[in-house]
Amino acid sequence: MGTYVMKFGGTSVATPALIQNVAKRVLCETECGNKVVVVVSAMGKTTDQLVSMAKELSEAPSKREMDVLLSTGEQVTIALLTMALQQLKINAMSFTGWQAGMVTEDIPSNARIETVDTEALKKCLAEGKVAVVAGFQGVDRHGNITTLGRGGSDTTAVAIAAALEAERCDIYTDVEGFFTSDPRHVKNARKLDEISFDEMLELAHLGAGVIHPRAVELAKNYQMPMSIRSSTIYTEGSILKEEVQMEKDLVVRGVAFEGEIVRLTVYFGETYNSALANIFTTLAKHHINVDIIVQSVIPNAAPTVSFSVKKEQLKEALQVLADHQEVLGYDHIDHELDLAKVSIVGSGMASNPGVAAEMFDCLFRSGIPVKMVSTSEIKVSVVVPEEEMFLAANALHDQFELGVMSEKLAQ
Amino acid sequence: MGTYVMKFGGTSVATPALIQNVAKRVLCETECGNKVVVVVSAMGKTTDQLVSMAKELSEAPSKREMDVLLSTGEQVTIALLTMALQQLKINAMSFTGWQAGMVTEDIPSNARIETVDTEALKKCLAEGKVAVVAGFQGVDRHGNITTLGRGGSDTTAVAIAAALEAERCDIYTDVEGFFTSDPRHVKNARKLDEISFDEMLELAHLGAGVIHPRAVELAKNYQMPMSIRSSTIYTEGSILKEEVQMEKDLVVRGVAFEGEIVRLTVYFGETYNSALANIFTTLAKHHINVDIIVQSVIPNAAPTVSFSVKKEQLKEALQVLADHQEVLGYDHIDHELDLAKVSIVGSGMASNPGVAAEMFDCLFRSGIPVKMVSTSEIKVSVVVPEEEMFLAANALHDQFELGVMSEKLAQ
Repeated sequence: MGTYVMKFGGTSVATPALIQNVAKRVLCETECGNKVVVVVSAMGKTTDQLVSMAKELSEAPSKREMDVLLSTGEQVTIALLTMALQQLKINAMSFTGWQAGMVTEDIPSNARIETVDTEALKKCLAEGKVAVVAGFQGVDRHGNITTLGRGGSDTTAVAIAAALEAERCDIYTDVEGFFTSDPRHVKNARKLDEISFDEMLELAHLGAGVIHPRAVELAKNYQMPMSIRSSTIYTEGSILKEEVQMEKDLVVRGVAFEGEIVRLTVYFGETYNSALANIFTTLAKHHINVDIIVQSVIPNAAPTVSFSVKKEQLKEALQVLADHQEVLGYDHIDHELDLAKVSIVGSGMASNPGVAAEMFDCLFRSGIPVKMVSTSEIKVSVVVPEEEMFLAANALHDQFELGVMSEKLAQ
Repeated sequence: MGTYVMKFGGTSVATPALIQNVAKRVLCETECGNKVVVVVSAMGKTTDQLVSMAKELSEAPSKREMDVLLSTGEQVTIALLTMALQQLKINAMSFTGWQAGMVTEDIPSNARIETVDTEALKKCLAEGKVAVVAGFQGVDRHGNITTLGRGGSDTTAVAIAAALEAERCDIYTDVEGFFTSDPRHVKNARKLDEISFDEMLELAHLGAGVIHPRAVELAKNYQMPMSIRSSTIYTEGSILKEEVQMEKDLVVRGVAFEGEIVRLTVYFGETYNSALANIFTTLAKHHINVDIIVQSVIPNAAPTVSFSVKKEQLKEALQVLADHQEVLGYDHIDHELDLAKVSIVGSGMASNPGVAAEMFDCLFRSGIPVKMVSTSEIKVSVVVPEEEMFLAANALHDQFELGVMSEKLAQ
């Protein structure tokens, strides 16, 4: 017996029938005598519908009001799921973000959680009730409703699990666990039983998409074991934890990929000095997430810096840079659309210097041009043309024999 | 220059285009230099859609969770209207019930407002912003979201107007003002320029439907002038205030009607003593609203008591009575469906004892049977078969010459 946090995403609660299914899933946990907090997202396409209404009314809707608008999505789900639980004779109670004590910084649409005031949740659990909490949302110190940005419900779940010192935080989703690559696009992709926080963090950041990187980061910080499992199929999922000893000798653990990447290149004139830091400080101030950065200073040529951003932030990034051209002191900017990022990740890569070379060789043999490269201790990312993304992912998955790793282990 | 509260109901904000129209209406007020609080309901059929999802999940959804669910409706509207105002360059900010300081008693689905903590609203107005407040909802002292029951947005508007000591509270709706009867069903119905709180209160209670009785009661208590006017047509509406001297000599001011009424009759045996009070105390405890009560004690016959409830509460009323049969000491109960209530209202009726007789005579001549009667200082209500409701309303409207009252006044 312990406290478990169960998180269900938008596709798992998209219809009343699916919400009933989630209620049954919760019943399994409560019947084991566990205390349960359920964190839910907005139903299916609710958020998209709300966004489209906002766009009918305003070209650039205020972020504060977008948060007020979007946070209704999860509020609908918590009420409906609580009703479904009560229909199964489970004592349950719903909590919006502010009712659950999710206090965030006062940055609309992309707030980070500051504290979780668990008093109300603890009281609810102590009374033997299931707490049903709205993910993705909180309240700032001034009483404004905030949202946590993309994938925020995962972060809500882990933050509550950490604050309540739960046994585990289970992310229920539409896949059976974490795979060596996306099984929809990579033919030999295989489910991993265990994965380390660090590997997951790299994979999450690289667009594996199953779980939000902020949630993994938080779980790592608080050493909160997590799992990823199917909301419809009753099987063991993948467990995330600090160290995954058993498979430590394996070099590459997964292949991740992500489309809709844009490369921007800034051309400097003579005045190139502290401008580099200034560019990224300016972009960060305007909440533009820069990913890969490549700097090039060639003798007798104008220095340039290239970096990648998501396509959805391109317009904003160009505007911010244009607004600050004088102070940043650059000459001009160009950009390249229709790019994708493909990455290999694995804890064992640090001690295997040949991995990056093997990756480039594989891509070269597959005829895929590499536009940018970025490496860390446990991953190598390349930017390639978007139309080659799946080809690259499959080639790398085969190259590092990810589909047959289980047989290797079984030896 | 002063503070005005403008309230727009669900039909006035049913689509983004209508919300834009409301924003323009608000612009007219702010351009006059007035401080404005806008109170809005949920968009059109939103509430119905939410209720139908809840019913898919639970036969009898918990009232607390229904409030969590339904309160999302107005939250969507405040965000969208605020965006529409901002698009017109009006500085505006949205407030949910709890953000606006609407503290209610802890009775889900039908809570009364206890206090309005105006600090946040006053700050918003002082900063020159329009405050856009979610009607119909509040928060109890334990932090639960509550709703105010049917027509609660009117009550929100008046409560805020009173708390802010506003100049006036304007209820914008889909009619041009308050009519002598419902113009959709009574052919000569005529708009009234002024009406007293007391008359309005009787008419509102009697199903005139334009404005909620609790709102009128609150306005009367705080002597807050109100108006009812069209949200689409720019004309003067009807003003509600304490005394309407000009037309005081007119006996009947309006005809109201309401369908879906059920008459219950409780048959007592020998043990009829304090049971009468007990019945209505028991029903009140279970939040069943009893309207007309007729008691009949005929020598040598079992005593009976009849009363009317709304059809939607019939099932619950029968259940409550059945649960308490032993303690209430009655023999059996029957009920009659498909009834309606038709009422005539006017401040001058108190001093005109012939009015009720004239009403009964008119109905008799129209061949309409009267099932129950109830009178007050300023109204007479009769219960008639539902299929005769419009016929009765038209006959009474003609009988008391409500359609030609303006000509009389013009003499």
